[in-house]
Amino acid sequence: MSDDRPKTPKDSHYARLRRQHRSQSTQPAGRPGAGKAIAPSLPADGLVRLYGLHTARAALDNPRRKISRVLATRNALRRLGLDEAASHPFPLETVDPREIDRILGSDAVHQGVLVEAKPLKAKPLSGLGETALVIVLDQVTDPHNVGAIMRSAVAFGAGALVTTARHSPQESGVLAKAASGALEHIDLIEVRNLAEALGELHRAGFQTIGMDSEAPEELENSFAGGRIALVLGAEGKGLRQKSRETVTTLARLDMPGAIHSLNVSNAAAIALYAARRHLAR
Amino acid sequence: MSDDRPKTPKDSHYARLRRQHRSQSTQPAGRPGAGKAIAPSLPADGLVRLYGLHTARAALDNPRRKISRVLATRNALRRLGLDEAASHPFPLETVDPREIDRILGSDAVHQGVLVEAKPLKAKPLSGLGETALVIVLDQVTDPHNVGAIMRSAVAFGAGALVTTARHSPQESGVLAKAASGALEHIDLIEVRNLAEALGELHRAGFQTIGMDSEAPEELENSFAGGRIALVLGAEGKGLRQKSRETVTTLARLDMPGAIHSLNVSNAAAIALYAARRHLAR
Repeated sequence: MSDDRPKTPKDSHYARLRRQHRSQSTQPAGRPGAGKAIAPSLPADGLVRLYGLHTARAALDNPRRKISRVLATRNALRRLGLDEAASHPFPLETVDPREIDRILGSDAVHQGVLVEAKPLKAKPLSGLGETALVIVLDQVTDPHNVGAIMRSAVAFGAGALVTTARHSPQESGVLAKAASGALEHIDLIEVRNLAEALGELHRAGFQTIGMDSEAPEELENSFAGGRIALVLGAEGKGLRQKSRETVTTLARLDMPGAIHSLNVSNAAAIALYAARRHLAR
Repeated sequence: MSDDRPKTPKDSHYARLRRQHRSQSTQPAGRPGAGKAIAPSLPADGLVRLYGLHTARAALDNPRRKISRVLATRNALRRLGLDEAASHPFPLETVDPREIDRILGSDAVHQGVLVEAKPLKAKPLSGLGETALVIVLDQVTDPHNVGAIMRSAVAFGAGALVTTARHSPQESGVLAKAASGALEHIDLIEVRNLAEALGELHRAGFQTIGMDSEAPEELENSFAGGRIALVLGAEGKGLRQKSRETVTTLARLDMPGAIHSLNVSNAAAIALYAARRHLAR
């Protein structure tokens, strides 16, 4: 929509940011064999900036997380139980809150702590473990929604979040904050082709359930078997045709009210809750 | 929770709205007898700015909505089925998208339409109709979360959203956008004292269920009777002690994973879904 707008200096600034963003998100980090030019998936230093007490705590507790540097206020150090005199596997700087404001902008509620770290590596689908529940996102990219989905996925014991390599959310401070620590507790799996991945999930014994408000079957009556993959599309667009055709089952949530769609993270939370209850039976 | 979000151009847009919102919400609107200085609850003109196609469509379709002015691009007029030559009960101006950008800031995804309208009037609890399902918010004020909760509440057929007059969300463009039209479909009820209101709900035959992650009882085993009021507290803080003591039932959602809390709008969506299924049985 904003692309139709006549050019002003500000517009071309945003256009440049959008192009940058697109070229990042269409060329997710250079995985060996991905067959694509390696493009930076993150700001110049390649680090992700994690902030807020929950998010920082979870990152510090994650042995897979490579931390480059921690900045924290004296108060945050205390709340995180970090001893500034002790030795840590990362440089630790005690700072004024304004120092963190300066890096993140003054509107980020960082609670006095910033962890600079390497982004977590996404796994291929072959790395999926023994989990009975996974969530698959078909081009859902909004970091607030994806973060909230991760949080619910971890809460309901999903073992992995599967996304396409293209049109996937980038790990970011916003996503991590919305995930409230969940980012460190779930495997991220990136696939080149979602339909092929759904086929692989079938072969691994998963029922793949595509959430679709027009589906004839109600979610609670759709569950079958002991491994469930829930597939959600972006808000507005929904599942792509190919995904719709490839899933085992299309299912809807019954909404008797005047509105028949939910925020995607809310739909995901309900589907995860219902699937977890099915699996527990 | 969204107060924790970091800066992007879009975020600083929201940050600005949040700051506006905060300064408004600490001075809840001058209701007669509220015993407080009358403070403006909205920007100077007292109007709320609703934008985006869904939100605008719902406002235009709501006979209770007093519209002062509609600005729309030619494209948005077409998509809304509005004939600029016809006569309307409000002034209609065909504008350039930049005109709307200028009013809302260039980061609001307005899709070419802005409806300026009077905020909807909150009702007292005595105005509650025959509904079997209501949602009660105990100091949840974040407009993104409250908007998403309204959307789920309407989808699952809740008849009202009950909040306290103090520490309640203000109707705003951000809230309306997150509600995606739901704002026009649900009664807003404001009460002075939440514990008293819970008592009134009991006398009207409601089971009041406070959502609390530490509750001994699981939500699905807690439902009893034919009218349900779901009570949710703010993220992090949860229900206030007095609310906790006043509800009929405290209930938790079972979360077997490494994280034991959800985003408040996700928790609300699950509770509404489960309550609606109970009521349908």
